[in-house]
Parts: sequence; structure tokens; C-alpha cells
Amino acid sequence: MKNISTLPTTPPKELHKKKIVKKTEKLAKRIGELSRILQADAGHSILVVLQGMDSSGKDGVTREVFKYCSPSVVCAVSYKKPTPLEFAHDFLWRVHRHAPAKGTIKVFIRSHYEDVLIQRVHGWIDEERVNIRFDAINAFEKLLQKDNNTVILKYFLHLSPERQLEKLQERKEEEDKYWKHNPGDWEERKLWKEYMHCYQEVLERSEIPWTVIPADARWYRNYCVAKSVCEALEALHLKYPPLKEEV
Amino acid sequence: MKNISTLPTTPPKELHKKKIVKKTEKLAKRIGELSRILQADAGHSILVVLQGMDSSGKDGVTREVFKYCSPSVVCAVSYKKPTPLEFAHDFLWRVHRHAPAKGTIKVFIRSHYEDVLIQRVHGWIDEERVNIRFDAINAFEKLLQKDNNTVILKYFLHLSPERQLEKLQERKEEEDKYWKHNPGDWEERKLWKEYMHCYQEVLERSEIPWTVIPADARWYRNYCVAKSVCEALEALHLKYPPLKEEV
Repeated sequence: MKNISTLPTTPPKELHKKKIVKKTEKLAKRIGELSRILQADAGHSILVVLQGMDSSGKDGVTREVFKYCSPSVVCAVSYKKPTPLEFAHDFLWRVHRHAPAKGTIKVFIRSHYEDVLIQRVHGWIDEERVNIRFDAINAFEKLLQKDNNTVILKYFLHLSPERQLEKLQERKEEEDKYWKHNPGDWEERKLWKEYMHCYQEVLERSEIPWTVIPADARWYRNYCVAKSVCEALEALHLKYPPLKEEV
Repeated sequence: MKNISTLPTTPPKELHKKKIVKKTEKLAKRIGELSRILQADAGHSILVVLQGMDSSGKDGVTREVFKYCSPSVVCAVSYKKPTPLEFAHDFLWRVHRHAPAKGTIKVFIRSHYEDVLIQRVHGWIDEERVNIRFDAINAFEKLLQKDNNTVILKYFLHLSPERQLEKLQERKEEEDKYWKHNPGDWEERKLWKEYMHCYQEVLERSEIPWTVIPADARWYRNYCVAKSVCEALEALHLKYPPLKEEV
């Protein structure tokens, strides 16, 4: 695995935004169709894990990629600071209950990976715990994959610190983004280097691989995730099931 | 409350389908915008309850009305036959955990009302249990409404038995509908009169009122629900919240 800092956060220069936006629209429509067959077939489930620094676009990408899906197929769960009850359990306790049922797609906006990211960056857990957690994460994901036909798609939305600054600033300047402003994000930003170190380890120690998404441009970020999700769905060769026999 | 059997299942004759479809599209877009402000504001939650005979369009209406909403705001839960674990609890146990959090919309495709419908029609519970359950339902809904600012919108999708016959038949004839075919639905259909009697009681004994939706025509059904949901959201006078003070 390459060093994160050498991976691009911006789109390839030769791309035309307009064309890519059109392609993304087509991909989203196809994802809508395939999600319906996934529901009908009820043989697989999809888990989409979105991680990235604040304002990297986890919400935005969820909205765009699944815009043609029904809420009865796709549901997103946003993991915030654990509640006292959640803290009183192992770190996967609150996650496991949201694992996707067959025939559905679950989007994790942040995930169990926060437990080896924010908690590690701040030194709230020691390295022994970190090791235990990586083992647990790999075992957990393998369980979903092997025991419930879950396709696990993990995206690291890779944002540059310069672009983050612009986007955090937008949240203080645009009325419909005020609600996303969180003074704590500006504090976390100071720990950028430590976060990248921990993200690097996440990418390297995960058995089910991550896809690194250049996230500085919204349109390219959405395109990359839509393309990847669509390809994963196509690869299942889903079909509407035959008519059930009469009893 | 009028007798259900006197209420229309078809659209008013003077309506033009094309115009109504356009209006529905506009309403759905507006619901998309408002749902985003609902999320930002995080002061209210919405519970949409969909009940109706098999093939009355509970899935279809969910897909159409919320088509411009993000899966991070709207999530649907479909209640099937209770599992043994669910059966080992009170009937609201499996429902309560899916109550919508503030800033979100939850759609119940079937709901706790099945426990005074299918279970009553088949005589699996006696009338004393029915009374207990109606009291519990009213108390539960009031709890959500009063203690968590939940707006509860209940729709009975009112289908004629003739139209159901056509739609159940479609499920046996159209490849992308095979998966919806369920021989059990043809059995339940024989109990139409008993179901209507129990639905009548549901409409009469619910403290939070139901809206009866003529459901024979998909386009009119979608329009009626979209209009009602949109009006309920508008009535909240939602606004994007102001910028949080710096700490």
C-alpha cells in the first residue's frame, strides 16, 4: 500500500466535469435498477462503509449515489459519539445490529473504524487495544461476508487539508450549511498528520480492501463511488427470481 | 367515521392523470428539500405508517413519495411475520426500536396495526387482547408524539377487491413482479370482509387519525400521499438552524 500522502485528492486533469456528471447520473440510475433486483432476489446484502475527514463528503456521496434507490432498500446509519450505553459495550456492539439484511444496502457514515481512528489519535486506547480491535474488525467483516453474503465496499474519501479548510469555512458562511458547522471539527483538523498515520494503518491492516477516493472535487468523488458501487452490483449478476411454486 | 365500503377507491373522474403525475413530481421534490431541513433542524421526527391489503402499493408509494430524499434522512422498515424472538415479547417490542430519531423520517410498511388486523381476522387473539392492544397503540403513539416531537402520518391504502385481483395476477405474469407473488395473499383475499371490518375499527379506535387513500390507481394514490406528507412538513415551518456559537 502506497503512502496516503502520495495519493491524489483531485481529479485527473484531462477529465471534463460535465461529462463526468452525466456519467454519474447514468450510474446512479443503474444502481437504482440493480438495487431493486437485489431486493427481489434477497440473496445478498451490501455494506458501504464511508470514512474520511470532516467535510470529505460522506453525506453528499450517500445522497447522490443512491438517489434512485427506494428507502425500503437503502438505509444509511450515521455513527456519532457513542452514548454511555454504547460505551458500556464492546465497540462492535452498536455496529452489528445495523448489519444489512439480505436484499438490502446499508450505508455506514463513519463506522467501526472510528474506534481505531479518533480513539487512537487522541490516545484514548493503547496499542494493545488497537491490535485487538483490528483483529476483531477483520473477523467481523469476514463473518458478514461469509455468513450472510454481504458485499463489503469501503471508501476512504481522501481530502486535502487545503480543501477541507475551504469546506469548513463554507459551513460558517452558507445558511443551509450552518447546521454542519461544529467547532470540534476545527480542533480535529489540527491533528491531521496523526489522522493520516492512523488512516494509513486502516488501509494496510484491513483484510477486505479499501478504495481511496480523491475527494477534493464533489463531482469526481461522486463519480468514483457510483462507478465502484455499480460495478460491484453488476458483478453479482442479479436476476429477478422465478415465480414461486404454488403450495 | 363513515363505513369504509362507502369510501372511494378510485380517483375523481374529472382528474387528468398527466397533470397529477406532474404535480406529484413537484411535491416529491419539495419533500426532498424539506426533508433536508428536517435533518438540519433535528427538532422533529416523522413516522409514516402505511397499511393496506396485499398489493395496495405500500412499497410503490414509499419509492415515489421519497424519491428525492437521501437515505440518511428517510428509512423504511417492512414488518413481516414476527420471528420467534419477536413473538416472545409484547407486540410493540419490535416496533419501538424503529421509532424515528429527531431529524429523520421512518416509513413503516405494515406496522403495529397488523397486531389488531391479521391476528384478529384469524382469531389468534381474543377481544380482550384486542382492547388491550388498542389502548397500548394509542398510548404508544401519543408517547412518540408528545415526548419526541414525532409527527405521525397514517395512511390506509384503500383498494377494491376487483383491482387487487388484477394486481395479484400481474405478479404471476410479469417477470419483475414474480418475487412479490405469495400464494398466502390469495388465501388472505378470501377474508376480505373480515379485514374490512377490522380496518373499520382501526380507523375508528385510533386517536391519531388516519387518512384513507383511494389506491386503485397508482398515480392518484402516490399523489394523495405525497400531498399529505408535503403539507405536514410545510406545517412545521422548518428552517435551517443558525450558526452554532463558538465554544
